[in-house]
Amino acid sequence: MTAHDEWVARDAAVVWHGFTQMSAYADNAPVMVERAEGHEVIDVDGRRYLDAISSLWVTTLGHHVAELDQAIRDQLDRVAHTTLLGNGNRVVVELAEALAPRVPVDHPHFLFASDGAAAVEQALRIALQFWANQGVEGRTGYLAFGGAYHGDTIGSLSLGDGGFGTDVYDPLRFPVLRAPGLDEAGAAERAAELIAAHAPTLAAVVLEPLVQGAAGMRIHEPAAIAVVAAACRRHDVLLIADEVATGFGRTGTLFAVEQADVQPDLLCIGKGLTGGYLPMAATVASRRVFDAFLGPDLSEKTLYHGHSYSGNALAAAVALRHLQLLDELDVLANVQREGKHLGAALDERVAVLPGVAAIRRHGLMTGIELAPPEGGLRWGRKVSAACVARGVLIRPLGDVIVLMPPLTVTPDEVEQIVAVVADAIAEVCR
Amino acid sequence: MTAHDEWVARDAAVVWHGFTQMSAYADNAPVMVERAEGHEVIDVDGRRYLDAISSLWVTTLGHHVAELDQAIRDQLDRVAHTTLLGNGNRVVVELAEALAPRVPVDHPHFLFASDGAAAVEQALRIALQFWANQGVEGRTGYLAFGGAYHGDTIGSLSLGDGGFGTDVYDPLRFPVLRAPGLDEAGAAERAAELIAAHAPTLAAVVLEPLVQGAAGMRIHEPAAIAVVAAACRRHDVLLIADEVATGFGRTGTLFAVEQADVQPDLLCIGKGLTGGYLPMAATVASRRVFDAFLGPDLSEKTLYHGHSYSGNALAAAVALRHLQLLDELDVLANVQREGKHLGAALDERVAVLPGVAAIRRHGLMTGIELAPPEGGLRWGRKVSAACVARGVLIRPLGDVIVLMPPLTVTPDEVEQIVAVVADAIAEVCR
Repeated sequence: MTAHDEWVARDAAVVWHGFTQMSAYADNAPVMVERAEGHEVIDVDGRRYLDAISSLWVTTLGHHVAELDQAIRDQLDRVAHTTLLGNGNRVVVELAEALAPRVPVDHPHFLFASDGAAAVEQALRIALQFWANQGVEGRTGYLAFGGAYHGDTIGSLSLGDGGFGTDVYDPLRFPVLRAPGLDEAGAAERAAELIAAHAPTLAAVVLEPLVQGAAGMRIHEPAAIAVVAAACRRHDVLLIADEVATGFGRTGTLFAVEQADVQPDLLCIGKGLTGGYLPMAATVASRRVFDAFLGPDLSEKTLYHGHSYSGNALAAAVALRHLQLLDELDVLANVQREGKHLGAALDERVAVLPGVAAIRRHGLMTGIELAPPEGGLRWGRKVSAACVARGVLIRPLGDVIVLMPPLTVTPDEVEQIVAVVADAIAEVCR
Repeated sequence: MTAHDEWVARDAAVVWHGFTQMSAYADNAPVMVERAEGHEVIDVDGRRYLDAISSLWVTTLGHHVAELDQAIRDQLDRVAHTTLLGNGNRVVVELAEALAPRVPVDHPHFLFASDGAAAVEQALRIALQFWANQGVEGRTGYLAFGGAYHGDTIGSLSLGDGGFGTDVYDPLRFPVLRAPGLDEAGAAERAAELIAAHAPTLAAVVLEPLVQGAAGMRIHEPAAIAVVAAACRRHDVLLIADEVATGFGRTGTLFAVEQADVQPDLLCIGKGLTGGYLPMAATVASRRVFDAFLGPDLSEKTLYHGHSYSGNALAAAVALRHLQLLDELDVLANVQREGKHLGAALDERVAVLPGVAAIRRHGLMTGIELAPPEGGLRWGRKVSAACVARGVLIRPLGDVIVLMPPLTVTPDEVEQIVAVVADAIAEVCR
């Protein structure tokens, strides 16, 4: 019995892994990580794997980054955590000040949380109460898009367009006005029509700009976002941009909405915020939104929402250093360069393979859609396992192979990923 | 202008604090923390405050604890985070194995999250799908209690009994069967009747055992929990214990349900799990619950729920060391001893003061209910500010003064807290 087998058995006896059928866990080539260096995770047997999923879309500069480690060590010498409920913490102020000129939100205020889904929940609540605080009645609805995924809590799940067997939760979900996915022809115009028709009942429109990640990397044009944003402005409906997945450089700009020259009223951020080190998320509110909550102390205009660990000091310290490193290392230029490199290499060596239906990519967010001849072949699973066996860690979304390498991925690593994926698909999909 | 004033102004310009009316933020004596040592936080001017709210009910052993700092430093040398979705991480297995014999759950599996509210959301989803997976229809409801608070996301908020101006969110909340608060006479028997009458529509009963913290430290007897649990067993309804606030020693036992000799089907933990260092929460499922989700890979029996940072390695490392320290330092004995000490001192010197209506305490969770002669006097705020001015950091719940010192609070610190609170109440409440 290898250390791997022993640890997988111990793991399955006590840990419930999310989005994972536990009866099949051990058979689906899990990597049992003990440590990591740079872009590689290292398992309990010392085997190395290139982390081509960025430890689920969160790692930006890699693992065990000296500067990020040091930021946490330095903050440990000050304090790990103190509450933001009615009190402040210096490093959190420094982080918010550093983020403020970088987020595409007018005069931003940052309401922190830990799970990305919680940032979306906060945006939902803020949008609804924004109208109520001004005495506007009936603005309690949301428009969301086909294919949407905004997280797994009940509010986030209500915005989401089902899938993943979530229909069972319908009794708990609130209804949402559904526009077609923005990658469909005419979808933005249809969304604009729906916004015009339903504005008096809408608190906000919620979108994942440029890339719907969990839907299998469904990609739309920046122009579609601009059309939706213009309709929101025209009919005075708030726009919530959920950039938990797309934010912090993943699409080649710091935030995806920048490519559409759009400023949302509320922006949700998470994942890459801490460089993939620690859980931290935030809801970023524009001045107009923030100001609607000002009033007498203890009044009903207050946002009575806050998580215990909101604005955790260790997470804030690493997020602050990470934001500086994105500039110091010119990371966005690398995303643009290696994104194109990845796209060209996939077009040349993967798109041509039998069993590959489509490749969708924006920046370094990539989905390779496989087309099994009939259902139940588990091609996504098998291709992933074949990649892991070749030293490249990926995780599929059904039969979509997701590639989401760290933002600092090198040209050689791009070549390695493409070669391994091509081999794995050629082996499995025939 | 002191550093304090400058930092508060900078803070208010960019940070939105939860449960805080931002127009009054600067006036409500915020402490602007820069660092901390032991039980004291230290502000940007070097002033020290005894942290009598445990940085919102999370700090257990104090701040800047050498052993906890070291656990994070050591884990930084391995890896900060890798995904648990379909993969494992050694330190997370070690944490779950260490927790397993300590949680009052039969053959537990741990599904991690970061925000405590997310742990409750997970429990909601698991309970509902538990029945659906077995082909039992119509089990989609929940029974919760008067005064309940389970967090701020829409699912958690639905379980909550309003308050904090949350009625505005009613259009987003799912309906819940409401039993009277367990501190009311006959409430447990009434809850048992409701469970008997509604069992075919109930997925689960959700309770905060022993202490409803956010309701103002409303306290019930262990026997009440036992009555509810027995009704759940008799009518085969799942029991969810939300111990995010009460867990990890706050009531004198590691978990509050132990005092009622009850094993819930699902247990929600958070806050003290990491000793107050890092955001981590978990939903702990019994074997019966876990087994109902086993089935073919990719089947609808799978729980399609998981947050990016679930099972963060740094948080797991500090949680593991923290659990060991609770034993090594015999912390529960201190909670029992100093809880009694605190209770006796409050009875002697605070209960007798004009303006004090009631004192409620279990372990180190304490609420002092003030009784202003008429509304709008903001006594809670003023007493807190008077305590902060005297070097003791507290934060009220309306007109309930909350005392929630670290679990390792010393006899001298208990005396200091009681003296300061008595002085502050005597100054304000007349």
